[in-house]
Amino acid sequence: METESAGTERGTERVEAFSDGVMAIAITLLILEVKVPHPLGTASIDLLTELLRIWPSYFALALSFVMIGIYWANHHYVFKLFTKTDHGLNLLNLLFLFCISFLPFPTAVLGSYVLDGANQTAAATFYAAGLLLPAVSWTLMWLYACYAQRLVDRRLESRFLWLLTVKYIGSVVVYSIAVLVSLVAFKLGLALCVGLTLLYLAPPHFPVLHAIVRNA
Amino acid sequence: METESAGTERGTERVEAFSDGVMAIAITLLILEVKVPHPLGTASIDLLTELLRIWPSYFALALSFVMIGIYWANHHYVFKLFTKTDHGLNLLNLLFLFCISFLPFPTAVLGSYVLDGANQTAAATFYAAGLLLPAVSWTLMWLYACYAQRLVDRRLESRFLWLLTVKYIGSVVVYSIAVLVSLVAFKLGLALCVGLTLLYLAPPHFPVLHAIVRNA
Amino acid sequence: METESAGTERGTERVEAFSDGVMAIAITLLILEVKVPHPLGTASIDLLTELLRIWPSYFALALSFVMIGIYWANHHYVFKLFTKTDHGLNLLNLLFLFCISFLPFPTAVLGSYVLDGANQTAAATFYAAGLLLPAVSWTLMWLYACYAQRLVDRRLESRFLWLLTVKYIGSVVVYSIAVLVSLVAFKLGLALCVGLTLLYLAPPHFPVLHAIVRNA
Amino acid sequence: METESAGTERGTERVEAFSDGVMAIAITLLILEVKVPHPLGTASIDLLTELLRIWPSYFALALSFVMIGIYWANHHYVFKLFTKTDHGLNLLNLLFLFCISFLPFPTAVLGSYVLDGANQTAAATFYAAGLLLPAVSWTLMWLYACYAQRLVDRRLESRFLWLLTVKYIGSVVVYSIAVLVSLVAFKLGLALCVGLTLLYLAPPHFPVLHAIVRNA
Repeated sequence: METESAGTERGTERVEAFSDGVMAIAITLLILEVKVPHPLGTASIDLLTELLRIWPSYFALALSFVMIGIYWANHHYVFKLFTKTDHGLNLLNLLFLFCISFLPFPTAVLGSYVLDGANQTAAATFYAAGLLLPAVSWTLMWLYACYAQRLVDRRLESRFLWLLTVKYIGSVVVYSIAVLVSLVAFKLGLALCVGLTLLYLAPPHFPVLHAIVRNA
Repeated sequence: METESAGTERGTERVEAFSDGVMAIAITLLILEVKVPHPLGTASIDLLTELLRIWPSYFALALSFVMIGIYWANHHYVFKLFTKTDHGLNLLNLLFLFCISFLPFPTAVLGSYVLDGANQTAAATFYAAGLLLPAVSWTLMWLYACYAQRLVDRRLESRFLWLLTVKYIGSVVVYSIAVLVSLVAFKLGLALCVGLTLLYLAPPHFPVLHAIVRNA
Repeated sequence: METESAGTERGTERVEAFSDGVMAIAITLLILEVKVPHPLGTASIDLLTELLRIWPSYFALALSFVMIGIYWANHHYVFKLFTKTDHGLNLLNLLFLFCISFLPFPTAVLGSYVLDGANQTAAATFYAAGLLLPAVSWTLMWLYACYAQRLVDRRLESRFLWLLTVKYIGSVVVYSIAVLVSLVAFKLGLALCVGLTLLYLAPPHFPVLHAIVRNA
Repeated sequence: METESAGTERGTERVEAFSDGVMAIAITLLILEVKVPHPLGTASIDLLTELLRIWPSYFALALSFVMIGIYWANHHYVFKLFTKTDHGLNLLNLLFLFCISFLPFPTAVLGSYVLDGANQTAAATFYAAGLLLPAVSWTLMWLYACYAQRLVDRRLESRFLWLLTVKYIGSVVVYSIAVLVSLVAFKLGLALCVGLTLLYLAPPHFPVLHAIVRNA
């Protein structure tokens, strides 16, 4: 009976639509942090030089754009594995969206300061931490849905779930290392962030269902 | 006959989709108010110090993010209880969305001035008032739909509706108190705002339907 | 056969979804034009005074918010009367969306300069012109769909369509007058804009269908 | 069986919805790059003069708005021709969205510097390059879907696909020429950009299906 579930729906459509919206907005807002070069006071500037000089902003923009794009794809992938949602998952998803919507800020900080000798270590570390945050909240969301509440499709093989768990915890470990490495060698820290991003561009695994496996 | 209702549809889908859009945008725009620290004139800055110094911006960002997230969840919850909408509800909903879309401004004011001794009382009071506004428009929307026009599902128990009414009016009272308290003790006023937000993170009540109760 | 219409769909859903997105974003971006007051140089400011001093920004924000909200409601209302769309309507709709997405700019200009004695006439006239633009493109869209291409539901009474035509052309006339009046008496010009907005808050007419009328 | 495809869906709906979101946001963000004129220091300004003086910003805004609007229409048109998507197409689409979301930046640069004698060549060339980027990624996406992976509806005539291919590669050529021309005669380069945009406003071709052709 449809009306009995009024106000108590447990499907994931709502949460997915809202999450899609926030990720689409965050990914598009990134460009607002790339500021048009303007002369200080009455001095004139050489526009071409300035447009080239702010290349770190383009680099940071591209990296964060790809990161959010990957999370968007993974969010869809993972929520397809869930058969329902609950209040705890909604809160953890909100925490994840907070980390995503925060990303334009460390991106802007990296773009502005990565070439500033005195502050480049701080900028790179702050950016790596900005990538660590969504990875942590993502993994918390996964662990909650997968192990604490069993919101995932019960026909999925536990070995398949385990592979995803290892992958997500692995990301948290790598980003944590990137933060620590940035403190002593910021270029290496950023290289770790770029490397992990490129790794994520590989196509996602197909879920393996018990039902299918049993037939095989 | 489908065409008879052309242009006069009374379902809540349209209003919900638009409201979702505005809330998703408002929640993501909050980060734009956290400004990258820049040196004044030709002086150099210590980025790490500056990033730590603007912690009130992070605090205000997180609090407003959670607030809008809660309203998003409650908006869905409440609109599921409505069986239809009308012009008055649409206008009150627009008023509510105005208050939500306004929130990034008091959030930015709080983040910028809460540590400024001369202005912190004004900043905290303005922020508390910024939280009071959506609570008031929300409650007006609820009272209109629930009592003035009976747009809610008629099988819902009046005692259940009454509990929600008390909850919403209670929020208005607490935020009003927070505004007044902020005028004399801004830290206590902010603590009230944070406390009420944490309270709202509790899972929502399940609606109780007559149909179900009768069977019991 | 579904596949024959691949790439040539003529329904209005796509256009409506895109238009909803643009209007939801434009209405939420308005707040970004209300700037947090900041001290010039090293002087300190009285925040409360500053927050009150920028009341024209709040006024302009509220007026533009309501305007876009009304256009959103009317866009849905009118597109329900259309049975299909075509390339010309899509282009005119794009022109209309351009005018809507432009609105945050005259809104910011009005908020910044309406109290500046030397520039308040220019600010009010620019704002009135900013309201005239969507009204003109809206009316062009209506005239094209209704009379040039007959994209409207053919069962709608021509007298009903005529009433809407008069209403839309009437808005263009009033906003044109508001622009001219603003040039000599900016307060009266703004009052005209506010008045027309309040008028639009009245509930929309119900469409009258031939089919229904014939039965009566 | 529905559940077998959990997490592996190959339809284009998801990608289309996300792309629509990014394009709707990018098109609406353009206005944020048109800045309200403010006096430098304590000098007063003549608002009307300033509003007229920034006409290049309006011109750039309108041109970029139309460009994104055209891409939006073409995106829908082309994705209707695709019967499915794959990981490669998703990545190329993400690259295309990156180029679209980047457009507000060269738009702002053009608006700010096209009248600045020393920098107008750089500004126009940068803008033309900003239009070239989405054209290139668009064409890559088309070639991949159409020839590398045959993701298009197999009943479409190869001659029809070939016409679209010529059209898209032609755009890349014209924008490349516009970039080169801008380097020596920026006005001519911009005229090329405007001309191509106007050309694109023509209605799209109807797809020709084998099935239909065979019957004729």
